Amino acid sequence: MSETRFPDFQSLGDAAPYAARIRAVVGHNALFDDFTQDDLAQLGPYMQVYLAPPGGVIIREGDPGDFLLFIVEGLVDVTKTDRHGLVKRIAVTPPGQALGEMSMIDGEARFATCSAIEATTFAMLTRPTLQGLVNREPRLAAKILMKLVFTLSQRLRQSSAKLVNFLEQ
Amino acid sequence: MSETRFPDFQSLGDAAPYAARIRAVVGHNALFDDFTQDDLAQLGPYMQVYLAPPGGVIIREGDPGDFLLFIVEGLVDVTKTDRHGLVKRIAVTPPGQALGEMSMIDGEARFATCSAIEATTFAMLTRPTLQGLVNREPRLAAKILMKLVFTLSQRLRQSSAKLVNFLEQ
Repeated sequence: MSETRFPDFQSLGDAAPYAARIRAVVGHNALFDDFTQDDLAQLGPYMQVYLAPPGGVIIREGDPGDFLLFIVEGLVDVTKTDRHGLVKRIAVTPPGQALGEMSMIDGEARFATCSAIEATTFAMLTRPTLQGLVNREPRLAAKILMKLVFTLSQRLRQSSAKLVNFLEQ
Repeated sequence: MSETRFPDFQSLGDAAPYAARIRAVVGHNALFDDFTQDDLAQLGPYMQVYLAPPGGVIIREGDPGDFLLFIVEGLVDVTKTDRHGLVKRIAVTPPGQALGEMSMIDGEARFATCSAIEATTFAMLTRPTLQGLVNREPRLAAKILMKLVFTLSQRLRQSSAKLVNFLEQ
C-alpha cells in the first residue's frame, strides 16, 4: 500500500538495512538519550525507504499528508508560496533532518513543497504507524517525539528570531 | 527544592488537585488520544503549581531554563528583544498552552520573556522529571511529547507563514 505513495520514486523497501546509516545522520541531542543501534533496528521495519531523483517532488504544499520523512542521503529544497504567489525558498535540508512532521502531527495541509535537489534517499514514517508505536513501543515513540520537539524548537527559534525584527513594537 | 525556583510566587504544591482543571484547558488534538483523567492523575504529582501575581516574570529571555509550564488560569505576555534592543510582544498566551518547552528540550537560553498579565496559575514540568517519565512512564511521556509537537507545529506554521512574506525570492 505504501508503494502507491510515490509511484515515480524507486522503493527501497523497509528501513531495517538503513539503521546504521540513519543513526549516523540523525544527529545528537545532548540532553536526551540518543537513538541506539537497537532503537533503529527496532524502528527500521516500521519505515519505508524511497529514492527520489533530482527534481522529484516529495511533498507538495497544500496537499493533505499523514507522514514525515527523515532524509538519509541527498539534499531537499523547501519552498513556499507567499501571499503574492511568489515561490520562496525557506530552507535547504541535509541528511538527518525530519520533514513533514507538522502535517503528520496536526493533520493540516502541507505547509511547503519539498523537492529533491540531488538524488535523495528518505525514510518515511506514517501517522498510523506512529500511533501504533505509542501504544506498542512507547519508549521508542517517546524518543522519536523528543527528536521532533527538538527539531521544531530549533526551527521555531530561527524563524521567530527573524520575524521579531519585522514586528511593530 | 522546586520551591526555590519562584521565590516571589505562591507555591500551590503539586498538580494532583489540578488534574481536572488541567484536563479541561489543555485542549483537544483530534488526531491522537487526548489526555484522560487517569493520565492527568498520574502526571499531577510530577508537576508543581505556582501562582504568579500580575506583572510577575515567569521566564526571562536569555536565562538558562530546564522546565516548561502549562498555564492553568490567567494570561501570559510573551515578549522578545529585537536586534535593535526594542521589546516586542510576540504572543499573548491563554490557559492550556505550554510555554518554555524550547529551552526545556534543546537546552539553549530562554528565547523570550513570559510575564503574567493577570494573576496566573501555572503547572511546571522539569527536564529531569520528563526524562524520568520517558523511562518509567513512556506512554504518558509520549502523550506529553505529542502535545508539544502539536503546539510547536502550530506555532511554526504561524511564524513561518508570516516570515515568508518578508523573504527575498
